[in-house]
Amino acid sequence: MKRIFFFLLAIILSISSFSQDSLFIRRIYDEALLRGHAHENLRQLCKDIGPRLTGSSEAQMAIDWSYEKMLSYDFNRVQKQEITVPHWERGNTESAWFKTNDGQLHKVHLLALGGSIGTNGLLDGEIIEFKTLEALKNSKASKVENKIVFLNQSMDAAQIQTFKAYGACYAIRGSGAVEGAKLGAKAVVIRSLGLPQDEFPHTGSMHYENDVHKIPAAALSTKDANMLSDALFKGKVNFFMELDCRDYEDVPSFNVMGELTGTKKADQIITIGGHLDSWDTGEGAHDDGAGVIHCLEALRILKVLGFHPQHTIRLVFFMNEENGNQGGQQYAQWVAAHNENQIAALESDRGGFAPRGFGIDGPDEYLELIKNFEALLKPYDLHIFEKGYGGVDIGPLKKHFPEIPLFGFVPDSQRYFDFHHAPSDIFENVNKRELELGAAAIASFIYLLDQQIR
Amino acid sequence: MKRIFFFLLAIILSISSFSQDSLFIRRIYDEALLRGHAHENLRQLCKDIGPRLTGSSEAQMAIDWSYEKMLSYDFNRVQKQEITVPHWERGNTESAWFKTNDGQLHKVHLLALGGSIGTNGLLDGEIIEFKTLEALKNSKASKVENKIVFLNQSMDAAQIQTFKAYGACYAIRGSGAVEGAKLGAKAVVIRSLGLPQDEFPHTGSMHYENDVHKIPAAALSTKDANMLSDALFKGKVNFFMELDCRDYEDVPSFNVMGELTGTKKADQIITIGGHLDSWDTGEGAHDDGAGVIHCLEALRILKVLGFHPQHTIRLVFFMNEENGNQGGQQYAQWVAAHNENQIAALESDRGGFAPRGFGIDGPDEYLELIKNFEALLKPYDLHIFEKGYGGVDIGPLKKHFPEIPLFGFVPDSQRYFDFHHAPSDIFENVNKRELELGAAAIASFIYLLDQQIR
Repeated sequence: MKRIFFFLLAIILSISSFSQDSLFIRRIYDEALLRGHAHENLRQLCKDIGPRLTGSSEAQMAIDWSYEKMLSYDFNRVQKQEITVPHWERGNTESAWFKTNDGQLHKVHLLALGGSIGTNGLLDGEIIEFKTLEALKNSKASKVENKIVFLNQSMDAAQIQTFKAYGACYAIRGSGAVEGAKLGAKAVVIRSLGLPQDEFPHTGSMHYENDVHKIPAAALSTKDANMLSDALFKGKVNFFMELDCRDYEDVPSFNVMGELTGTKKADQIITIGGHLDSWDTGEGAHDDGAGVIHCLEALRILKVLGFHPQHTIRLVFFMNEENGNQGGQQYAQWVAAHNENQIAALESDRGGFAPRGFGIDGPDEYLELIKNFEALLKPYDLHIFEKGYGGVDIGPLKKHFPEIPLFGFVPDSQRYFDFHHAPSDIFENVNKRELELGAAAIASFIYLLDQQIR
Repeated sequence: MKRIFFFLLAIILSISSFSQDSLFIRRIYDEALLRGHAHENLRQLCKDIGPRLTGSSEAQMAIDWSYEKMLSYDFNRVQKQEITVPHWERGNTESAWFKTNDGQLHKVHLLALGGSIGTNGLLDGEIIEFKTLEALKNSKASKVENKIVFLNQSMDAAQIQTFKAYGACYAIRGSGAVEGAKLGAKAVVIRSLGLPQDEFPHTGSMHYENDVHKIPAAALSTKDANMLSDALFKGKVNFFMELDCRDYEDVPSFNVMGELTGTKKADQIITIGGHLDSWDTGEGAHDDGAGVIHCLEALRILKVLGFHPQHTIRLVFFMNEENGNQGGQQYAQWVAAHNENQIAALESDRGGFAPRGFGIDGPDEYLELIKNFEALLKPYDLHIFEKGYGGVDIGPLKKHFPEIPLFGFVPDSQRYFDFHHAPSDIFENVNKRELELGAAAIASFIYLLDQQIR
């Protein structure tokens, strides 16, 4: 009898907690959609500040803006964490042409890859095309020597998950310069990692290796890549380019953070965030203006609704995700050095599109945990609760906390590679409502996580 | 033993059919995403033709274009069905201002509602605000008489399903003129049924009643509606408007159709389609250019992949959905008069956004049927398979075939009411990839439906 009583009590309590949660989540969405700050905050970040390349004045202004904004929302322990970051600049000149056998000249749209050296004036040479990095690696020095390498690998439009298509091409950008230089190439130009056929080149990070000669590296727009490939099909083509970019000495910079301090388990910390830096082209609106604004708004909403988390929810705006990940790495070192107990982390770094759910990188028990959220979040069109990826900035936490669950916010990915790292990644291309729904989804997720995580 | 044998055989056959279906659906998506015609066809419809208001020259050009396009794809039985449609024109002049007590004049963005009478020169009067149609209906003639009624009901941004927010406001547009006239109003202006706060007015259909005096009706942009409401809060406001619109005699027009004739059950017909007409503002890109292009592309893909359906799949481009639904009604009469056996219908009329699934309006057995599709379509991010709405054009089939299942394609709805019936509903606001995914989703659905429907 007693057993039945407790069994019934447990059911009643669980129904009542479900209905309380359901009501609170509705309040979160009302706040985001009816009285939200997300869109105006993103406007400020994109328009009043602009693109925020690590080490730039804009990045510094954004750090200041973020600090003041977190103070204005009365978050706890608002602070800047000093870190050291690389400082690369694009410079003033970025021009390129190709010339076909019959003397026809074509100006092309090009962006230096982040970290590339400059060309030191006009660089030119015969250009040779490879469809993949593997094809280049399998080629001979005699074929490549003294030429400019053109890596023309298309993102696979047939991939439904666009991040997979991106991942499959990533190597031409990251390692093209190293592999080209090994075979004696003068420079490397890649086809932009973007899905549409348009005139926008997409930049992004690349790397050099200590024992390999450094050569300049840049990305062509997909349209120009098609034109160049067509020209190469017909005969020899010479390529001309000037890049003015260069590396400077490392500089100090900051991660910015604020908290809702936990009421019961203040020493157990859930980190949420995105990266404040962006590439220097466009306005870093989706990447990752949307992500930092999502998490800022999520914490603001939880606070204005009077939610007192059990655990400490810490918001972190990471610096330097794009070209070094120093923000993420030095944050992880800092929390380890402070003997902090990080119990979970969440990142938003896939743009401000319509929310679809959350991915989890971590032990299976956390997959089970978030699958329990689905019933409460389905009315908000959230349906993805599965194994996935956390985020670049929160990734380094794993080194210090091997069992930590890393959650990644998953918005619809179909339009992301229209804008990613391109001049078109501007405020106008973020939809207000889709952005607000993302903030509400994250606030709801954090609300449930704080209550249910053990 | 025999029983076990047949049981195992059934399992093997079902696994093999699942894997065949899975491969075929992959081919559908490859064709849509790698060799698709959808984006270029939508460009032609929006840019080479333009907005396609029923009775306009553009609508005629679109009928001709559709007929030629279906012939070019070698569909079976390509034909035009002659129908009779209303003919309303916006005319040349559409201007409006409001003037506050202190003499300040504000020009506002306004569109006549479809079907409205004109003002016969400049019409002016004191304007009086109501927040809902109910509030107007509950008001007194003495309050409303000789005034201009302003129906300022906002779409509820807190609704996650934007179509619900639209449905809740629909009455101010449809019935505002009738209810205003009953109380002696001179004219009615409504707040546009759109979610963003911007300068684009959204038009749409309205109706008159035979025994109620006709008054002009128009929609203000949401920004102007806010400004006007603020002004009214401070004191008396006069409104000035000129609308040049008028009704003409009914004219002949056409639905356009083509088929893949069934191989086994040719007399059993599955109708798929959207509406070819649009409002005369913008380009009818999402509404419903995307819908007709989705279904055109779905049939093209099934044909080029060599799929021979068991049932006849008939593509219909309906005319006049926006202001009369004569296309849908006369199609249903026509199929009944021809003693056709319509076994199912599908419509796409919710824009060209990222696909999320399908809704079903019909007997429960069909809900069960499409739930079976989920396992095959989940890898394509389709997750909605539930009770829902079919479409305005296919709705009249129900009168003649009470048991017919009507399927509605469900794309993400968050951006739809940014563009719906507004000058911003243009080709540039349809994403190529999202459009292509919609066509592939519909082709896959039709492929499965043809095989599994009984």
